Amino acid sequence: MEKNNISYIDLDQAKAFKALETLSPLSLEKLLTTSAIAEKTAASGAGLSYNYAAMPVGEKQLELLEQLTEEMQLIGKFRLLAAGGVMNTGEKRKVLHHLCRSELVGKVLDEKGQDIGAFYREQQRRFSDFAGKVHAGEITGSTGKAFTTVLQIGIGGSDLGPRALYLALEGAVEAKMKGLFISNVDPDDAAAVLSGIDPERTLFILVSKSGTTQETLTNRDLVLSWLESKEIPGLKPGKQMVAVTSATSPLAGSDTLLDSFYIDDFIGGRYSSTSAVGGVILSLAFGPEVFDRLLKGAAETDAIALNAPFRENAPLLDAAIGLYLRNILHYPVTAVLPYSQALSRFPAHLQQLDMESNGKRVNRDGKPLGYSTGPVVFGEPGTNGQHSFYQLLHQGTDIIPLQFVGFKKSQRGEDRNDEAGINSQRKLNANLAAQIIAFAKGKEDVNPNKSFPGGRPSSLLVGDRLSPEVLGALLAHFENKVMFQGFLWNINSFDQEGVQLGKILTKKLLSGETEDQELMAFDTLLR
Amino acid sequence: MEKNNISYIDLDQAKAFKALETLSPLSLEKLLTTSAIAEKTAASGAGLSYNYAAMPVGEKQLELLEQLTEEMQLIGKFRLLAAGGVMNTGEKRKVLHHLCRSELVGKVLDEKGQDIGAFYREQQRRFSDFAGKVHAGEITGSTGKAFTTVLQIGIGGSDLGPRALYLALEGAVEAKMKGLFISNVDPDDAAAVLSGIDPERTLFILVSKSGTTQETLTNRDLVLSWLESKEIPGLKPGKQMVAVTSATSPLAGSDTLLDSFYIDDFIGGRYSSTSAVGGVILSLAFGPEVFDRLLKGAAETDAIALNAPFRENAPLLDAAIGLYLRNILHYPVTAVLPYSQALSRFPAHLQQLDMESNGKRVNRDGKPLGYSTGPVVFGEPGTNGQHSFYQLLHQGTDIIPLQFVGFKKSQRGEDRNDEAGINSQRKLNANLAAQIIAFAKGKEDVNPNKSFPGGRPSSLLVGDRLSPEVLGALLAHFENKVMFQGFLWNINSFDQEGVQLGKILTKKLLSGETEDQELMAFDTLLR
Repeated sequence: MEKNNISYIDLDQAKAFKALETLSPLSLEKLLTTSAIAEKTAASGAGLSYNYAAMPVGEKQLELLEQLTEEMQLIGKFRLLAAGGVMNTGEKRKVLHHLCRSELVGKVLDEKGQDIGAFYREQQRRFSDFAGKVHAGEITGSTGKAFTTVLQIGIGGSDLGPRALYLALEGAVEAKMKGLFISNVDPDDAAAVLSGIDPERTLFILVSKSGTTQETLTNRDLVLSWLESKEIPGLKPGKQMVAVTSATSPLAGSDTLLDSFYIDDFIGGRYSSTSAVGGVILSLAFGPEVFDRLLKGAAETDAIALNAPFRENAPLLDAAIGLYLRNILHYPVTAVLPYSQALSRFPAHLQQLDMESNGKRVNRDGKPLGYSTGPVVFGEPGTNGQHSFYQLLHQGTDIIPLQFVGFKKSQRGEDRNDEAGINSQRKLNANLAAQIIAFAKGKEDVNPNKSFPGGRPSSLLVGDRLSPEVLGALLAHFENKVMFQGFLWNINSFDQEGVQLGKILTKKLLSGETEDQELMAFDTLLR
Repeated sequence: MEKNNISYIDLDQAKAFKALETLSPLSLEKLLTTSAIAEKTAASGAGLSYNYAAMPVGEKQLELLEQLTEEMQLIGKFRLLAAGGVMNTGEKRKVLHHLCRSELVGKVLDEKGQDIGAFYREQQRRFSDFAGKVHAGEITGSTGKAFTTVLQIGIGGSDLGPRALYLALEGAVEAKMKGLFISNVDPDDAAAVLSGIDPERTLFILVSKSGTTQETLTNRDLVLSWLESKEIPGLKPGKQMVAVTSATSPLAGSDTLLDSFYIDDFIGGRYSSTSAVGGVILSLAFGPEVFDRLLKGAAETDAIALNAPFRENAPLLDAAIGLYLRNILHYPVTAVLPYSQALSRFPAHLQQLDMESNGKRVNRDGKPLGYSTGPVVFGEPGTNGQHSFYQLLHQGTDIIPLQFVGFKKSQRGEDRNDEAGINSQRKLNANLAAQIIAFAKGKEDVNPNKSFPGGRPSSLLVGDRLSPEVLGALLAHFENKVMFQGFLWNINSFDQEGVQLGKILTKKLLSGETEDQELMAFDTLLR
């Protein structure tokens, strides 16, 4: 299947890339016109649109970027991925998170001929039923009390994505249960969270695909012994807990747990928010129908990413323009700036999604690359960031491209007009519009300390209101952007070998097997 | 006073800097020896120590960096600043946050001959008394109920530092009141926080030095009208609120409020955590004696920064080595990685502190600079980050220097040994030690995808337990590091003109006075 006329070349071998390198950089201020604002826009799903009028790309750049995406067969590679191609070359795995949302190119079968999409749907049906029974009081804690809180134990992809989505949905819909998270192996994390919960009314979700994640198993044991220490008559710690894991993990099918839900090796941690990893907690906290709406939004974006032509394909444009910023203009950092407090932890999720996927220095065949790959990604919500690090963004010595996200309406609709008849949402968005212009155009001043050089590029993703559908579309927008950029860099965006060495050294140190004198010396400093 | 033998030159005019530029880069792996780990260490306050054995600086670099700090008179400039020199040249202000902690070089008088330190101490005495009366039930809400929650309304420096410290102290000591924060002008921020509080038992702290911050006044009005909307008999919204502001602000001395506490123009927002801006909420939440302990730790670090010789001066070493990374090795980003969940928002505070202070492109006299200044700063707690963006740090195409923070003991002491007798804190710190080694040394593998290039520099700040004193020392360590780096770059680290343009454009847009067509076009997209 991998041979479907798809070929793999490094970015610096692509003709369109070489042509891009010969173009002169353009003046952002000249490019930024009202007609550009009207025209340089493309749809993502659920009514989201991506505006790139404040990006330093003109017609020639766009033509060459389009040629580049064709020359490097980005849509063909996505099609191959969606059809079950082994795109995670390092681990020799399919990459099927899209299949949690929809069958983009039909059924995908595993080696035994089983329908993998049907498996994901079956799991979704199972955890939807489970959530429904918890909400109806048919499934209760082991002492018979209704569950009112759901607490996820997981780290990395089992934490950042689900947590960001949970926080983003809290104001979008009415919650059915309170959601909490424990991730860090630091015992203070668990201690702080556990200090605020009712053991009898809390349902724990243990999330580890491999079933071997050190932090997660340590925190599971910590939680189970904490539950035991409460000495509540009739309370069975295991029966307050469900697992989300792969069917082959040591955690699978445990009789000591209340239930288990399954994922498989074709869904990587940072891409797992729309699988059971995010689905169980979101379905419990907000209801299965809310999670379904999120999947619907994501599926809309996936379909656009796969089918829309370049100028109408927001994730593809975002990926291509990001590549131009990184490999032609050589900007090493991107800031993600959502003007929505509900997205307070969304940048932390994108940081993992982007940096863990594309922070790679060899191509998909293991050959060292002669060009830069994934940038550093960071961000905080606006307007908070304006009163913090924006100083450097405006007047620092480096240019940092910006990715703004905004919504026409607030989530909760609880707002107030001031004496001038202006509400907070309007102020929020006026700030956002003003920042785009300030960054792009700058301002001369006789006092050089008050001058703004401008020429700071930004894009804007804008939606109506941060609903479950819009949130799903936003999530899928970035997943697809990152995937497309991985194709452009000719890397494998779906493994994470870079996390292994630290794990190995930790294990050796804890088991007393290390002979590394410096490792032991640092360890001693910390004891 | 500014003429005390102090002169100002740009970094690239310094002889020692030119000499540094001629040295060949060193191999980190060769530098990292057990004797280096034992020797390359210096004290900050409260028992904190800074270890730089995994930094790419050898004896020659250190000698030249020491010469550089002398040539550029860093200690002399700090002494001048502490003595009341007008070091904020842009705004023509003294810079006196250290004076909230101690009189480093004696009394500082204002233009009327008043003792400024005495004013800060008087304010601390006033809010300590106030907090004591709230805790004793002598000051209550307007309906006579005891205050149990304290909610700060502020943004930027009135939010990030106090919030980071609040979260860091929650596990360090027993709380007397619950603390909450509203910062963003996004109405969803206030709505979410207000939905969980008891209006009669919540004391609001309104924090704005100028008394004119758009977001903060908007949120004040939103909170006051929310309180009114509750129609609780006897409840007087203003009498549930205190202000922290300057004596000349429109908020000062308001009869409609319960009380007011004062700061002045000599304490910048991002340096204000140890003034009333942080002191009121921390004294209410944890008790005045806890805030006092924090000040004590900060004062210890300040004294080391001012008095210790180069090799024994942690903030000075950290600043100088950071400069080497930025201006000799040309690394544009620094990651701050605390292995402590209690410091979950400390990187966000440091992001403001560093990027708003040193994200400047002109020198203190307004002359454009020919070298890089402040880096991008970002970070998340370990071990969480290991399962997220560390992939790029280990195997990405760029080198990102790392600043680790760790503690020998957990804060809460609620831990558990596993079957092998290893507790969570030990696992946490073993991970930290392992990461330092993995980043520095890397590992060859026959599979290039599993190879780690190493050569990734890191430093380690290590303390015993994150107590109030240690937290104060940590805060002051970074404040002094950032100040010293500003001196090295010959910039003014104490203004923030870069935030002004966006404010002006927002105001014009909201008042209908703008004629910028592109600004209006983006605004339309968001309505």
